[in-house]
Amino acid sequence: MKFLYQDSQISDDEIAAAGKSLADYIERLNHVARAKDYSLPEGFINLPGDRNLANQISEVCRSKISGRLKYVVVIGIGGSNLGARAVYDALRGYFDLLEPERFPKIIFADTNDPEFSERLVGFLKSKINDPAEILINIVSKSGDTLETTANGNLILGALIGKFKNIADRIAVTTDFKSKLWHSAEKAGLSLISVPAKVGGRFSVFSAVGLLPLAVVGLDTKELFKGALNMRDQCLVDDMLKNQAALSAIVLFLNYRRGKTINDNFFFHPELESLGKWYRQLLAESVGKDGVGVTPTVSVGSADLHSVGQLNLGGPKNKITSFVWSENSAFVEPLNGAEKLGFEPVSRPFAEIMGAILEGAKNAYRNKGLPFVEAVLPDISPESLGEYMQFKMMEVCFLAKLFNVNAFDQPEVEFYKKEACRFLTN
Amino acid sequence: MKFLYQDSQISDDEIAAAGKSLADYIERLNHVARAKDYSLPEGFINLPGDRNLANQISEVCRSKISGRLKYVVVIGIGGSNLGARAVYDALRGYFDLLEPERFPKIIFADTNDPEFSERLVGFLKSKINDPAEILINIVSKSGDTLETTANGNLILGALIGKFKNIADRIAVTTDFKSKLWHSAEKAGLSLISVPAKVGGRFSVFSAVGLLPLAVVGLDTKELFKGALNMRDQCLVDDMLKNQAALSAIVLFLNYRRGKTINDNFFFHPELESLGKWYRQLLAESVGKDGVGVTPTVSVGSADLHSVGQLNLGGPKNKITSFVWSENSAFVEPLNGAEKLGFEPVSRPFAEIMGAILEGAKNAYRNKGLPFVEAVLPDISPESLGEYMQFKMMEVCFLAKLFNVNAFDQPEVEFYKKEACRFLTN
Repeated sequence: MKFLYQDSQISDDEIAAAGKSLADYIERLNHVARAKDYSLPEGFINLPGDRNLANQISEVCRSKISGRLKYVVVIGIGGSNLGARAVYDALRGYFDLLEPERFPKIIFADTNDPEFSERLVGFLKSKINDPAEILINIVSKSGDTLETTANGNLILGALIGKFKNIADRIAVTTDFKSKLWHSAEKAGLSLISVPAKVGGRFSVFSAVGLLPLAVVGLDTKELFKGALNMRDQCLVDDMLKNQAALSAIVLFLNYRRGKTINDNFFFHPELESLGKWYRQLLAESVGKDGVGVTPTVSVGSADLHSVGQLNLGGPKNKITSFVWSENSAFVEPLNGAEKLGFEPVSRPFAEIMGAILEGAKNAYRNKGLPFVEAVLPDISPESLGEYMQFKMMEVCFLAKLFNVNAFDQPEVEFYKKEACRFLTN
Repeated sequence: MKFLYQDSQISDDEIAAAGKSLADYIERLNHVARAKDYSLPEGFINLPGDRNLANQISEVCRSKISGRLKYVVVIGIGGSNLGARAVYDALRGYFDLLEPERFPKIIFADTNDPEFSERLVGFLKSKINDPAEILINIVSKSGDTLETTANGNLILGALIGKFKNIADRIAVTTDFKSKLWHSAEKAGLSLISVPAKVGGRFSVFSAVGLLPLAVVGLDTKELFKGALNMRDQCLVDDMLKNQAALSAIVLFLNYRRGKTINDNFFFHPELESLGKWYRQLLAESVGKDGVGVTPTVSVGSADLHSVGQLNLGGPKNKITSFVWSENSAFVEPLNGAEKLGFEPVSRPFAEIMGAILEGAKNAYRNKGLPFVEAVLPDISPESLGEYMQFKMMEVCFLAKLFNVNAFDQPEVEFYKKEACRFLTN
């Protein structure tokens, strides 16, 4: 992955100056990496090299998965599903409608929406004919997330009368010794833990993200390879070579100039869920104490036809991060439509998308709007691993620059308590 | 639909004062409605009562649709697909994965993304066995949208060798006498026009939005009914009864107090595409001349676990519009999971979602964050018609308050020209 900042409107001198305040923190991250330490929240950087974790995941796959598997239902919300969904949608999920007979598919149950839930129960009751066709992965770090508990009840309730040994088809991912851990252990369910200090939004390379991806056959070794490679690049103290620190500095200095929104503009629609994963990561890690960058997710080229006018002609309150891949499938133009009166288009589709992106970048330059670019070599597990590690380390640096704690989310407890009050009244 | 503004932090006196500047414009809209006038861009308000349009749509359905129809491919981008997609996804599309055998389904081809396009061609070649199984709707108001032209070539190219009479399975929606109109007419394709002055983002109740919805069997009469009812409510000059004007005033006065972002927070995930439709509507209509509200789309309850922390603890630069439905499917909690050690959840799902929403609203109040609410009676064609008409009229009023032209998009031409320059070089 290449991070380009030439259009960020931040000079190398400004970067070097801001980077000085990160030196101690980079030293700390190096210590965490050397010691393979999970006692700090930054321990997430050690997950991609963790053999014990890889072995646990392999063991679940070995014991639970056969060629008969058709659906994996991931019951989790927020940090418990956004990472797996980002990778799955990029490589598979976005194409589900066009690949109706490709299995296994993942169903993400992250809502108690009545319309969705009613159909999900109907689907489980009528379409699953053999327990080997389904795997239920319940994911809750704390073990007591309201939506996940309700969905666990509903989904297991729909299956428990239907199959005798449905317990065999469940895997639970939670903190060691959480309430959910204890009840699952008692019921003899398959259990896998998350390191205590690794927060939900930093957990994609733990069992939280890895298990759903591994059971549907995605290459988690390649994901780890990309993540590990990026981690090592982002532990160096030369700011112009440390892409995560560089990106954090550019976002921070632009924020101080009034760019309070970071539009993440993915030029491949299958990466929209990756944007939603980053949206949580940035919003929850830095949005506190009255500061914070507001993340938005756009998809090219469609959203040039949607928010392009505002971005180019409205208030100059945004820094844009374009994300695109250098190599795509080769889609040749097809002939024949000229017989129906249609003007032929003689360029491969990657060239059309590339030309639109170049046009958009020139329009941003022309208007004096700052942007950066993350250029992926391709859309593969390895590239996604690189990008996700890059972004997780970036928000750690960004929180340091904002002088906030990247790892807490103090404001989300209030509404949860209020919701429980309404439910118990 | 009910619009609630008690937590908007705007007083009735402020609303009345701001409303005075809208009096002339309301008079003008009344004239447009009385005269059934399509000569102004506001003519979109007359579409829901247009019998000629309804008859044209019925005729296409009568001549093209049979019980064998499985897939409708809508080739269009931006204003040419977001409206149809909003309604389709709310009622059907969001549930596609759980209803694999429900047909017809819509495939929205709004990208030249190589990975998607490659799979789309493969799908059309291998899964469509009979021309009656497919209908292609090409939608481009101008008739020369780059992405749509390229997709038209690719998709017709994939089918033209396979079936003799594929021309029978095509319907084209475009401006009368556009380049596309002429070529389609020459090739004998089914054609339906859009009123010249009605812009893409205001075209959901024209053939642009209506045709795809009608051919898959959604009740466009009910959609019209809701839209017409809302239109009449939004032609009155009492600001506290004119919900569209009221909403515009509240957004405008909050913008002047630094709430430059409007977070549209839908408490039903199937309404996410409705949010994306409004995102274009608000961004393109008001985002110009250096001003404009930046729209964001959130989905409850999942996004409370994502951007909730930022919204509650970050900069106070947002006004939130909660959208929720009073009546939902009744999903009873299911028993049985307690045998697997899971704590039972004894509340119906609509109550759980309702409690989370109430908890969130109390958290916003507690932090002094302004919000409004659009309360739909249900999620039905009629309610969606009401909401969409409400929002289209709201942005007309909002543009008046901002003193910008709601109906142009001057900045989007530059990147298109640049893109063409790259393609022809």
